[in-house]
Amino acid sequence: MFTVGVVGGGQLARMMHPAAIALGIKLKVFAETKGSSAHAAATQVGDYTDLGQLREFAQTVDVITFDHEHVPVPLLESLEAEGHSVQPSPRALVHAQNKLIMRRRLSELGLPQPIWSEISSASELEAFLTKVGPEVIVKTPIGGYDGKGVRVARSTADVSDWLENLAAYGGSLLAEQKVSFVRELAQLSGTSTSGEFRSWPVVQTVQASGVCSEVIAPAPAPVDSAGAVEIARAIATGLGVTGVMAVEMFETADGSLLVNELAMRPHNSGHFSIEAAVTSQFEQHLRAVLGVPLGDTSMHSKVAVMINLLGVDNVIDFVSQYALAMKSYPEAKFHSYEKSARAGRKMGHITLQGNDLEQLIAQGRAAREVLYRGDA
Amino acid sequence: MFTVGVVGGGQLARMMHPAAIALGIKLKVFAETKGSSAHAAATQVGDYTDLGQLREFAQTVDVITFDHEHVPVPLLESLEAEGHSVQPSPRALVHAQNKLIMRRRLSELGLPQPIWSEISSASELEAFLTKVGPEVIVKTPIGGYDGKGVRVARSTADVSDWLENLAAYGGSLLAEQKVSFVRELAQLSGTSTSGEFRSWPVVQTVQASGVCSEVIAPAPAPVDSAGAVEIARAIATGLGVTGVMAVEMFETADGSLLVNELAMRPHNSGHFSIEAAVTSQFEQHLRAVLGVPLGDTSMHSKVAVMINLLGVDNVIDFVSQYALAMKSYPEAKFHSYEKSARAGRKMGHITLQGNDLEQLIAQGRAAREVLYRGDA
Repeated sequence: MFTVGVVGGGQLARMMHPAAIALGIKLKVFAETKGSSAHAAATQVGDYTDLGQLREFAQTVDVITFDHEHVPVPLLESLEAEGHSVQPSPRALVHAQNKLIMRRRLSELGLPQPIWSEISSASELEAFLTKVGPEVIVKTPIGGYDGKGVRVARSTADVSDWLENLAAYGGSLLAEQKVSFVRELAQLSGTSTSGEFRSWPVVQTVQASGVCSEVIAPAPAPVDSAGAVEIARAIATGLGVTGVMAVEMFETADGSLLVNELAMRPHNSGHFSIEAAVTSQFEQHLRAVLGVPLGDTSMHSKVAVMINLLGVDNVIDFVSQYALAMKSYPEAKFHSYEKSARAGRKMGHITLQGNDLEQLIAQGRAAREVLYRGDA
Repeated sequence: MFTVGVVGGGQLARMMHPAAIALGIKLKVFAETKGSSAHAAATQVGDYTDLGQLREFAQTVDVITFDHEHVPVPLLESLEAEGHSVQPSPRALVHAQNKLIMRRRLSELGLPQPIWSEISSASELEAFLTKVGPEVIVKTPIGGYDGKGVRVARSTADVSDWLENLAAYGGSLLAEQKVSFVRELAQLSGTSTSGEFRSWPVVQTVQASGVCSEVIAPAPAPVDSAGAVEIARAIATGLGVTGVMAVEMFETADGSLLVNELAMRPHNSGHFSIEAAVTSQFEQHLRAVLGVPLGDTSMHSKVAVMINLLGVDNVIDFVSQYALAMKSYPEAKFHSYEKSARAGRKMGHITLQGNDLEQLIAQGRAAREVLYRGDA
């Protein structure tokens, strides 16, 4: 009843570990490599596309959940058929894996989203460009993340390589209206296997080159908080989601919300909750997939800021700079994922909470500078 | 520079682990047994009174620190002489191991403490009883904790077994005035190897049968907060303490403070800091022994309450009751140390924070009842 198995050894599995230690819940991680970010909780290292290895792991835990959305759905269906608890279930998870399936289902549910179309040929894309252009967003339905598998297209030439190789993407692409948004928001929520639903305050996310760079929790007013929660609740219910889910949204000039992406796991937009909320997204995810009641999602302070530490090629190890950064920023919470540096890679994050948003952002960015470049 | 080695695999080492994971600091634990509370961070299992084993462990870490105060000082002096960083140093730690040495040093420093005397014979105890009786407290200088090694004596007969066996206690006992106190307080602080000192708000501790049962942070006013901090600072400086230290104190009817006990490690009275302070005692201890700057010790809320979960013989596993307890108390933070139950043993704790002290205490006690006995 209280052993959670996580497929994937990234930073999300890593950050579930402290929550599990506190609660006395056993956490087992099926990692891709020996030196994964979640190595301290890894009990198996292998290939998550191999049913035999997944089954071996499943037999050691009470419930299977995920650090990422890349485990093939048919394998998860097999595990479920064999009696293992898979949370979220493959029926729900497929919507986070395949953006076309997600768009279709959100349309059925009548939820607000950009105008979209399934594209199976260059002529279909031309028609869509004519309808909602001059620019549109084209996405590969599966496998994209952090800006990968996403392009802005003004003509079919911009995605000719994808169109010529449609079979590799399941036979079709997703085209979406290029929304003229004023900012991006994310609504984090948890849904337990018993159906209990709790949401954190909606947050503002700031992207740089398609990767989350900063998060402000809650999103500065005015914001349609109630609308954001209702969208998240409708998705959790309509798609049968369990565990923590992030709904990434565009906010348009009139304040209305459009669903951009879904993640069915703890998410970068919720890292602020580790210190700034009564229940962190990592603890909530464990509670939700185990089916025990969810925790309070209130924040301790008026506002929190999360600053990502992205890999910089000439910085091998920002942990070695802790002494400098901690001296100047005793209120900052520093997180390292113990990952080797690569440009743009998520290496860690900093969280600050308090009353003055501008000051927190300035402090967080300055602390990041110290970690990367040392004192001036 | 960033591997901390902890001797002892109890709940204090266990609770350092989440702090280490967040910071990306490596934690290695030298545990007594395979199934210790800190098993997830254990890299060696053995006998901490064996210099060879300690040395082997020391060679794998940058700094040695402790989950308990029982490692013999001569072994730690040997490790230091061999070039290992031992924090706190044996010169400081001896004061937490030996209550006679502590009392002598506090007298030299002129710090407030109960009237005390070193007792090497029954007649010396009789003289002390005549002077400060009718009742006094007698303690074995080493080895006592959680009420063990402490007795109330009205006559030498109450400790005749100790007096007849003085050699086993180093040749003498410690006798102390039985202070008429109104409540007990604890001042938690951190001192880094560079000398930086930071303290948390002074707390009130409630004992039951000599074991900490509840902690209120901060201690309800009026309280001599400044005096408590100055005592802690004088001890940290005067004894050369590094890392987290708890100074347990009596508060008398006129509000003055007398030092009762010292602990040179994270302490039960500081568990509230995990969720209720910007920097927890466990993170601070890691920062202090590594010599990186200390974190802010402010609290997020007006008040926090920590309720210990003590072992009850007929309750094997309160974790199995989480579903019931979490349903009624979504704001409560539950901690399990994964220890097998034994009456009076520290098995876990609950923390609540907010504005209304009476309500928090009532909720915490009720949540404890649910964990032990289920819903009414």
